Amino acid sequence: MISFAVLGCGRIGRMHARNLSRHPRARLVSVFDIVTKSAADTAAELGVTAAATVEDILADRGVEAVLIATSTDTHVPLILAAARAGKAVLCEKPIDLDLKRAEACGAEIAPLNATVMIGFNRRFDPSFRAVQQRLSAGEIGALEQLVITSRDPSPPPIAYVRVSGGIFRDMTIHDFDLARFIAGDITSVYATGGNLIDPDIGAAGDIDAAMIVLRARSGALIHINNSRRCAYGYDQRVEAFGATGMLQAQNRFATSVQHWGKGGTGTRDTAQPFFIERYADAYAAEIDHFVESVMTGKPPAPSFADGVAALKLAEAASESLRSGRAISLG
Amino acid sequence: MISFAVLGCGRIGRMHARNLSRHPRARLVSVFDIVTKSAADTAAELGVTAAATVEDILADRGVEAVLIATSTDTHVPLILAAARAGKAVLCEKPIDLDLKRAEACGAEIAPLNATVMIGFNRRFDPSFRAVQQRLSAGEIGALEQLVITSRDPSPPPIAYVRVSGGIFRDMTIHDFDLARFIAGDITSVYATGGNLIDPDIGAAGDIDAAMIVLRARSGALIHINNSRRCAYGYDQRVEAFGATGMLQAQNRFATSVQHWGKGGTGTRDTAQPFFIERYADAYAAEIDHFVESVMTGKPPAPSFADGVAALKLAEAASESLRSGRAISLG
Amino acid sequence: MISFAVLGCGRIGRMHARNLSRHPRARLVSVFDIVTKSAADTAAELGVTAAATVEDILADRGVEAVLIATSTDTHVPLILAAARAGKAVLCEKPIDLDLKRAEACGAEIAPLNATVMIGFNRRFDPSFRAVQQRLSAGEIGALEQLVITSRDPSPPPIAYVRVSGGIFRDMTIHDFDLARFIAGDITSVYATGGNLIDPDIGAAGDIDAAMIVLRARSGALIHINNSRRCAYGYDQRVEAFGATGMLQAQNRFATSVQHWGKGGTGTRDTAQPFFIERYADAYAAEIDHFVESVMTGKPPAPSFADGVAALKLAEAASESLRSGRAISLG
Amino acid sequence: MISFAVLGCGRIGRMHARNLSRHPRARLVSVFDIVTKSAADTAAELGVTAAATVEDILADRGVEAVLIATSTDTHVPLILAAARAGKAVLCEKPIDLDLKRAEACGAEIAPLNATVMIGFNRRFDPSFRAVQQRLSAGEIGALEQLVITSRDPSPPPIAYVRVSGGIFRDMTIHDFDLARFIAGDITSVYATGGNLIDPDIGAAGDIDAAMIVLRARSGALIHINNSRRCAYGYDQRVEAFGATGMLQAQNRFATSVQHWGKGGTGTRDTAQPFFIERYADAYAAEIDHFVESVMTGKPPAPSFADGVAALKLAEAASESLRSGRAISLG
Repeated sequence: MISFAVLGCGRIGRMHARNLSRHPRARLVSVFDIVTKSAADTAAELGVTAAATVEDILADRGVEAVLIATSTDTHVPLILAAARAGKAVLCEKPIDLDLKRAEACGAEIAPLNATVMIGFNRRFDPSFRAVQQRLSAGEIGALEQLVITSRDPSPPPIAYVRVSGGIFRDMTIHDFDLARFIAGDITSVYATGGNLIDPDIGAAGDIDAAMIVLRARSGALIHINNSRRCAYGYDQRVEAFGATGMLQAQNRFATSVQHWGKGGTGTRDTAQPFFIERYADAYAAEIDHFVESVMTGKPPAPSFADGVAALKLAEAASESLRSGRAISLG
Repeated sequence: MISFAVLGCGRIGRMHARNLSRHPRARLVSVFDIVTKSAADTAAELGVTAAATVEDILADRGVEAVLIATSTDTHVPLILAAARAGKAVLCEKPIDLDLKRAEACGAEIAPLNATVMIGFNRRFDPSFRAVQQRLSAGEIGALEQLVITSRDPSPPPIAYVRVSGGIFRDMTIHDFDLARFIAGDITSVYATGGNLIDPDIGAAGDIDAAMIVLRARSGALIHINNSRRCAYGYDQRVEAFGATGMLQAQNRFATSVQHWGKGGTGTRDTAQPFFIERYADAYAAEIDHFVESVMTGKPPAPSFADGVAALKLAEAASESLRSGRAISLG
Repeated sequence: MISFAVLGCGRIGRMHARNLSRHPRARLVSVFDIVTKSAADTAAELGVTAAATVEDILADRGVEAVLIATSTDTHVPLILAAARAGKAVLCEKPIDLDLKRAEACGAEIAPLNATVMIGFNRRFDPSFRAVQQRLSAGEIGALEQLVITSRDPSPPPIAYVRVSGGIFRDMTIHDFDLARFIAGDITSVYATGGNLIDPDIGAAGDIDAAMIVLRARSGALIHINNSRRCAYGYDQRVEAFGATGMLQAQNRFATSVQHWGKGGTGTRDTAQPFFIERYADAYAAEIDHFVESVMTGKPPAPSFADGVAALKLAEAASESLRSGRAISLG
Repeated sequence: MISFAVLGCGRIGRMHARNLSRHPRARLVSVFDIVTKSAADTAAELGVTAAATVEDILADRGVEAVLIATSTDTHVPLILAAARAGKAVLCEKPIDLDLKRAEACGAEIAPLNATVMIGFNRRFDPSFRAVQQRLSAGEIGALEQLVITSRDPSPPPIAYVRVSGGIFRDMTIHDFDLARFIAGDITSVYATGGNLIDPDIGAAGDIDAAMIVLRARSGALIHINNSRRCAYGYDQRVEAFGATGMLQAQNRFATSVQHWGKGGTGTRDTAQPFFIERYADAYAAEIDHFVESVMTGKPPAPSFADGVAALKLAEAASESLRSGRAISLG
């Protein structure tokens, strides 16, 4: 049984708090949010303590692990403080918008031997995981091409876009990690895109549609396409093409119902609305993996280094977008 | 090269005439229809002769085979006349609405050694045929259950319903033959149904929706469902469930396109409009099989006896509908 | 918050106990099983009391509701005892193997005004429920045909078959309830089947493959097919065909992964292994509905009367199997 | 009725000759091949003349149109000679491996007002065409992303690779044309790839796997992936993602049969073996469009200019592959 505190009681923090409160080997002890009401509501719902300060939580010897779901700019200081306080850390992505700052954080925590995991939830999706495992087991031979489709249902508020670090650091970073999870080390990044959806996003200096091509050290070619809007829901698919076959992970649907009528046949539900519903199983499995890591001492994956590596790809993508060139990495 | 005449230039006769005119080993010589204009139009379109009488065709030594696509009541006399004239015969289903008359016809032609084939086109559908062949090859073990879905897009005119012999002889007869093709001899028939679609069909003494359960000599159980109306097109499917697996033949679609939108995802085309489009490949393959039979002397299938057997099942279904009992056969 | 005891800690009882212990509005208090170890294990796992006797549970004023998951022959006495003790009851299907005994039980509990629900879990499957709701909402017009496919992965032990009451009371009873859920009152039952899978089942006087045709009061035709063995897993599907369209609920799969290789394309996972996995969501929703009923006083569905009605259909099916006739009901 | 000669009786030339001989508004008059036997065999099969020389054909006033299916290096001289002789021309892709030579040819034929069409067959695939038409009709709003998957079943002979002009001019050129057909003018090309399949292809200076990203003048982003080998057949798919929905054209299959077994469920046939089977309908529709053009004088599409435009994209892709930069066009 691992005792937890959750820092940040927004949408995703509250979801994690609920998952922790249901987990057979986890025990939620306390929650914190700078918005006092959010923490109080979550604490009341789940029958736990709303801590007055982060310091209270870090000083609490009854808390073994913290889950960080606060705003991105607080990730680095909170990871550092928690690791120094001897807590295991599960931190939402990204580590930071600034690669150097993330690397510096990594250097600081390295000697502490803390258990630190970054919340790239997609690695825990049962279907994406099955693709990775069946590929590793040799079911389709060597990977040659990987196509990741990742389209959000609708753009975030402009206020969020402005502080998001841009689409590559905010959204594509999940796809970069998924690419690394399935295809291994990446050696080259080409990215392009445009402002096709919402002029305000362009005015805020960002793009809202992107296409990226990566090359893996293995030689495998990888394509990612992103859109900040998708009429039919949250579109999340993976296609792994290998020497002897292909594995596709399709979207998930609320039901298995198909409609046949004079307007067309075989019509399924729309895709899941967004990440909370689409990745419900993945978030639960992510917690499970982290708890297992803390209990066994086996290092969790994705690790802090994985978080840095994804950020490096996001940075390279930004540079490629500016320059029109493929950017070589290591 | 086999030379053909086509008797009957309605919708289906004209389709056969076109198929014959395109077939590399067939040569269409002449056509006939009691509606002179129909014969003339077909003859003009395909550059062949419009015969003035059936007798002219049967007397023509340049005609080796006749395809009979006239109204059902003329099938028996035309089969007899053609067989006596030494022609090979491909006759549209059903042989006749009256089982005894069909059997008498069979007895008369037996000594003539004529090549006679009945046009159960579905045996030649590439997908249904693949199911039958893969089942025969042992791919799913012994057949245990067969489910045939067969729904017409819309009811025929009431005038046609009145002379059709009822849904079992007119429509289900195809499914009976398909059941025999896949599951072999049938030993029991239960049928029920109702007048769910068009009150005029009920007033004409027929039903427009039916469910049938057959038992094969092998022990396999068979379900057929029929509807005279189907909102999404012509629904034609087969599911063969065996000891070690299942084979399903799905509907066919004009394109492979799927639409994803806010009303639903994966929407395909409607099913094909009706038999001419749905079974285009099957009709061509049917002609091919008949030509091959005539050229090689190998008996065609479905044979005249298959036509009689399907009619027997239709008769048993009618009796079951009246009595509410399963009817045993041989 | 409703406090519960679970009677019967076999496979399905334990699953229910776990669901109750996770439910936000339920509280599991105690469990019982005649096999003391089963109760003790379940109690230990979930941190509740293992009651020494059923009487202890029924006498416990801290228990508001009992979930009965014991062997079928104990259902009637336990329902009666629990209802008399003022407990709400959720009882696994079937009520009893004997229709008269079930009806007598119904007559006895009627004046007690007890909340009694029968555990037909399939009504709570999100996809089947969506079919029922979308049909009710008029999405495909009036229901004309309903096809229920229901195939178990492998036969139960012969010892179980002998006391099961036969396939219709044991297995098809779920499909009968589902048919009533979607199509309403049933007025006619035809059933046939055979011993196609395991000769021992035949020797025990039962069949292992069945096809059933029902007619609903509305005129709708219903087909059910059952098999005690299915090579590709637990096959559970529903097709509702209406005047203006069709709704199909397909199987569920552990992942959305498809494999493409030289042996074929688009290969999905096998169907779920069996009911625990296939109906995980349904069992949770069933508990939820029951808790809601107990809390609000709104009668639960499926009711005791639904349990009796399904048993009546099973009885009629047995009679039809013997006689070869369709059996009329009310 | 348009009278045709076919130049080149290899695999694709013979297929065209057969299609012409079946076409209701075309008449095949003669064929030619530098391999005399190929021409003789085709002529014998179809009952036409095997011309001794191209000059004979061009001098034949009974020939209105020529279909050029000879080796690529002869396309330009044959187009010129045929256009000068007043024949309508349908020429297989590519026009030439050298862009300047193709452009010079275009300049020479411009004043001749000849009907010249380039054989980009995919525009005539019923599913790809439906995607283009439904997109044009506004069904999914403005196009934002287009993903073209195009994988050959197995690499061509090395001798062919050496003279092919490289994967972009030989294989991707079809995808470039399809991209233009659906997304319009292209303004930027990025291409990368590798030698993942056959070392001999690398030794011959070519790649055998490629990923390309294009930008259209409209702002739409386009991804193409190519492989010279595909374990499950000839993989040809298109996904058009727009502001209000998505259209996908899936692969085609020989039958609609799905297999369910203990190794997996829903297994379809492999994809079609290669272009002759996959694009059978498209080749027939291509001929039809060309015949229609010649008869009506309405310019055919894809035009000679479309052939040049696709070649320009292939050239830009080669340059991008070398330089690692996106190449801007017009």
